[in-house]
Amino acid sequence: MGHSTLMLGLDAGGTSTRAVLMTSQGECVGYGVGGRGNPIATGPDLAAQGVLDAVALALAPSSRALADVSVITAAMAGQKAAEGEGAWLGDRLAAEGFAGRLTFESDLLATYFSGSVEPFGYAIVAGTGACAVRVSGGRIAGTADGLGWLLGDRGSGFWIGRRVARAVVRDLDDAGPATTLTGAVLEHLDIVEDATRREGRSRTLENLVGALYGARPIELAALAPLAFAADDQVAESILRRAGEHLADSFAAVLSGPGPLVVGGSVLFRPSAVRNAFMQRLGDAAAGLELLPVVDGAVGAGVLALRAGGARPSSEMHIRLRESLSHFR
Amino acid sequence: MGHSTLMLGLDAGGTSTRAVLMTSQGECVGYGVGGRGNPIATGPDLAAQGVLDAVALALAPSSRALADVSVITAAMAGQKAAEGEGAWLGDRLAAEGFAGRLTFESDLLATYFSGSVEPFGYAIVAGTGACAVRVSGGRIAGTADGLGWLLGDRGSGFWIGRRVARAVVRDLDDAGPATTLTGAVLEHLDIVEDATRREGRSRTLENLVGALYGARPIELAALAPLAFAADDQVAESILRRAGEHLADSFAAVLSGPGPLVVGGSVLFRPSAVRNAFMQRLGDAAAGLELLPVVDGAVGAGVLALRAGGARPSSEMHIRLRESLSHFR
Repeated sequence: MGHSTLMLGLDAGGTSTRAVLMTSQGECVGYGVGGRGNPIATGPDLAAQGVLDAVALALAPSSRALADVSVITAAMAGQKAAEGEGAWLGDRLAAEGFAGRLTFESDLLATYFSGSVEPFGYAIVAGTGACAVRVSGGRIAGTADGLGWLLGDRGSGFWIGRRVARAVVRDLDDAGPATTLTGAVLEHLDIVEDATRREGRSRTLENLVGALYGARPIELAALAPLAFAADDQVAESILRRAGEHLADSFAAVLSGPGPLVVGGSVLFRPSAVRNAFMQRLGDAAAGLELLPVVDGAVGAGVLALRAGGARPSSEMHIRLRESLSHFR
Repeated sequence: MGHSTLMLGLDAGGTSTRAVLMTSQGECVGYGVGGRGNPIATGPDLAAQGVLDAVALALAPSSRALADVSVITAAMAGQKAAEGEGAWLGDRLAAEGFAGRLTFESDLLATYFSGSVEPFGYAIVAGTGACAVRVSGGRIAGTADGLGWLLGDRGSGFWIGRRVARAVVRDLDDAGPATTLTGAVLEHLDIVEDATRREGRSRTLENLVGALYGARPIELAALAPLAFAADDQVAESILRRAGEHLADSFAAVLSGPGPLVVGGSVLFRPSAVRNAFMQRLGDAAAGLELLPVVDGAVGAGVLALRAGGARPSSEMHIRLRESLSHFR
């Protein structure tokens, strides 16, 4: 292929960044992972460094340089804010020799295109947060939830984790049903049971409440896996409710048949969440094809190819996925 | 009364501190208000200053000094932690001439004794947070909820404010019923409506979500008054649910007849909260006497008198309340 022009997709997240280097035919020729790449969450300097580290690793196998790249597309949350102010990244890339075009896209769209190249379809991302989108004409045309941990994200990992924490404090406060989640959460947080009571309340409960408020609220999401691991009615009821919330968000953007790409861990595997999700959808779930994806790397690549003027076909999508799989 | 020994009650809160100076007979001879007095929320230096400012104002009318005070009782949230580590206040008071005894008590107990001197009874505090306690033998014998904004405080001002915010974002997201709360919240936050849509979502919603996440979570409590002011089904349903939660917390500590002292603004006045609270209690509400109190100042005085060895009678309680009322 010689020194033809290259394209680069960036899936820049709050914890890590993935860079996918491709030929204009969608053949992956390099892949790299760097640190946090979202300037809103991380600050511009650290985020730019996370991106550049991933880019350097992606360039290494082919011994190509940023000067050979004609298009870079960065998919990230809150790209609306970043779009107008892309200098935090553009200036750094230019300093490294990049002379092409830099575009920004939604991380949700990258998730979608990781699973499908159909111009019409849906994505649900249910990880720490939860959001459903309708894609039409290759753009996001409708959004449901994704309103963050304090106001929404119903059915997300945070939502489940907070429900787990509340079920456990209610159990310890004799205000709710007994649940095996209590032992699991105490063990997870290294809290030793202490039945000594003070003002009608156990030390165990006081210590648990202290530990939970000692961490950032969002860290409650770390309790979600305990619900999936439990064999317990309280846990199952939390998971079922999560699945119903995700179904309601999906139903809010549903408008005709299309593939459903699923990102994030909550809806990824068969579980009470998935069962309740399908049941709640009822007839709307008939023929629904769930396409789980691990991240937005492939989709960021698709978005870069599109930014470069291509209309990626199913064949190109398969080529990209398969060639990328050799690098990770 | 000459230079007989004096007693001082402190109602030390997260936003202000009240000091009540009394004779050993419960006659208030001075009252002062200072800044934040809780070391956990404010840090020890600022908290000590808030207390000392209140104390100085309380001493001024009688021209007495801290050396004339034999007992100081500080009522505050989280007094368990402060008790073992009272030096942050004790050292500062000693430096100002105090040579008596300093004790710490629960702010919930001060609320209770602001409304009653009965050794057995109940208190519900529903302000920013929400908690119910049973008092027995003059001590807190049972506690329900009070688990903080992230894990509990059901029916509190924060709980109501968060429900208001969620109802409004769901209205703007076309995911919930229309409500007049939407206009009220947007006006409260100075957000101008902008129906421009992006990715199926209005700018109004984006701006609202940005504003709500730009503040500390607890500040959602400031939206609670909008629910009380609204004439709206969504608002009423939030308030009714809050009243039911408060009733459930009360029911969890209920164990025989006794006065119910009510602190905080949520349950203070007749409202949908109060109606739902009484309805939910059903027969248990028969003969229930609600005693609203504005703060814990009187009760902190009662606790100081008790710490000095007195067993405050109803007469002493009335004397304290009436003599204090001349100072504020």
